[in-house]
Amino acid sequence: MRWIRYEAEGQPVYGIVEGDMVTAVRGDPFAGYEKTTTLRPLSSVKLLVPVEPRTFYCAGLNYAEHVIEAAKKRGEEPKLPEAADIGYRANNALIANGEPIVIPSDATERVQYEGELVAVIGKKAKHLSENDALSCVLGWTIGNDMSERTWQTGDRTMWRAKNTDTFKPMGPWIETDFDLDAAQTIIRVNGGERFRFKTNSMIFGPATFISRMSQYLTLYPGDVVWMGTEGAPENLKHGDTVEIEITGIGTLRNPVVREGR
Amino acid sequence: MRWIRYEAEGQPVYGIVEGDMVTAVRGDPFAGYEKTTTLRPLSSVKLLVPVEPRTFYCAGLNYAEHVIEAAKKRGEEPKLPEAADIGYRANNALIANGEPIVIPSDATERVQYEGELVAVIGKKAKHLSENDALSCVLGWTIGNDMSERTWQTGDRTMWRAKNTDTFKPMGPWIETDFDLDAAQTIIRVNGGERFRFKTNSMIFGPATFISRMSQYLTLYPGDVVWMGTEGAPENLKHGDTVEIEITGIGTLRNPVVREGR
Repeated sequence: MRWIRYEAEGQPVYGIVEGDMVTAVRGDPFAGYEKTTTLRPLSSVKLLVPVEPRTFYCAGLNYAEHVIEAAKKRGEEPKLPEAADIGYRANNALIANGEPIVIPSDATERVQYEGELVAVIGKKAKHLSENDALSCVLGWTIGNDMSERTWQTGDRTMWRAKNTDTFKPMGPWIETDFDLDAAQTIIRVNGGERFRFKTNSMIFGPATFISRMSQYLTLYPGDVVWMGTEGAPENLKHGDTVEIEITGIGTLRNPVVREGR
Repeated sequence: MRWIRYEAEGQPVYGIVEGDMVTAVRGDPFAGYEKTTTLRPLSSVKLLVPVEPRTFYCAGLNYAEHVIEAAKKRGEEPKLPEAADIGYRANNALIANGEPIVIPSDATERVQYEGELVAVIGKKAKHLSENDALSCVLGWTIGNDMSERTWQTGDRTMWRAKNTDTFKPMGPWIETDFDLDAAQTIIRVNGGERFRFKTNSMIFGPATFISRMSQYLTLYPGDVVWMGTEGAPENLKHGDTVEIEITGIGTLRNPVVREGR
């Protein structure tokens, strides 16, 4: 099942995508819903971020080649994470599929994509075993963890490097039927493929993260867990369009503009 | 004006405290409200966290003596922050005044309080000058940034060191009339004073943080900004009660229990 969140008469509503059409629901996929008889063409709706999380989790470093390449650029020895220690991102930075990523005028040219799988939590959960961990997941979406690398290195925290407004595109929808083992993540800029990796080649998979997190914290419906990216991302510039495709989910596509241009 | 959030017939509602009484309102202090004729004794209501933030900001290191003492304990040279780079905490960990702080059974004995002033954002804001920064603040409350120091040092992120469930007491209410220059922060354990500092002796004040944050990110009504703590906090143990008083606001009081005891 494919869930979208969109705007209808100025209000956010959830709908179920079937083919090219959307069936509006009353309620939402978390607290419960019933289908209405309202059908709209998918192409006619304004997509919203598929969920506004109560807590926005992000694995950060979670693919070996990405850790190695990032360390090489800083002239440091790579250090692979030894445990599934989760990090955070911020809701102010979320934008939907199709909305522009706005690079601040004082950012350097080192503004880069990171294509990520996102687990969307569907049920309140605590103390889950690794075997049961995915039972709290409603479905999967796609995130682009946009990063300004000079701020990421120079600032004491990652606040503006990672959480500048518009730096967290998420969408286009939540897919509940997803084969993680079969999935590939593909990154394209202006239609040209830049990088491709096996989505499940993570250092710690979603079950490992969610189980470990849930030993100390309660996961809530609507929380999201971004799973990290692979490879050495490249710079984006004004006028580019960046796409993150995860096969079996869909494609998250956003234009890039520089403030004041 | 003093705003509380409390439970009435199982629903969260806002009220205005006048003396020992609470006047319930329709609406909330962010989107607008009107007073009702419902009056209750303050002592009869179950306090809730005064707001569930969209984004939960936290300054972290922001008082010189705290930075110096923490570095000393790690055997490192202290390094004062050079800019108002904000950090984050997580909503899962929030509890209200009076609710128990629960120390996980596998935590060490190094579980410590941090008494903090909290700015509560009242209006959507971006690109504020330092002079105008406090115009977006609705009022002030108190936070206790509970921290497990072995996890804080050993984990790759501060996820469980700072954001274990119940590790973020906030309250008891939001005070809109507050003289920051006159305020003192006082920490008590089991009624005995442990530490006292001038609340405004921060390295970077709230106006500096909020102005800098707002150059890159939009602040939203209900966001909170925790301002850091001073001194060298001490361990808390099962059976203790910890109080953070900020003069002119009130006292945030929480009992401490260890899981499985």
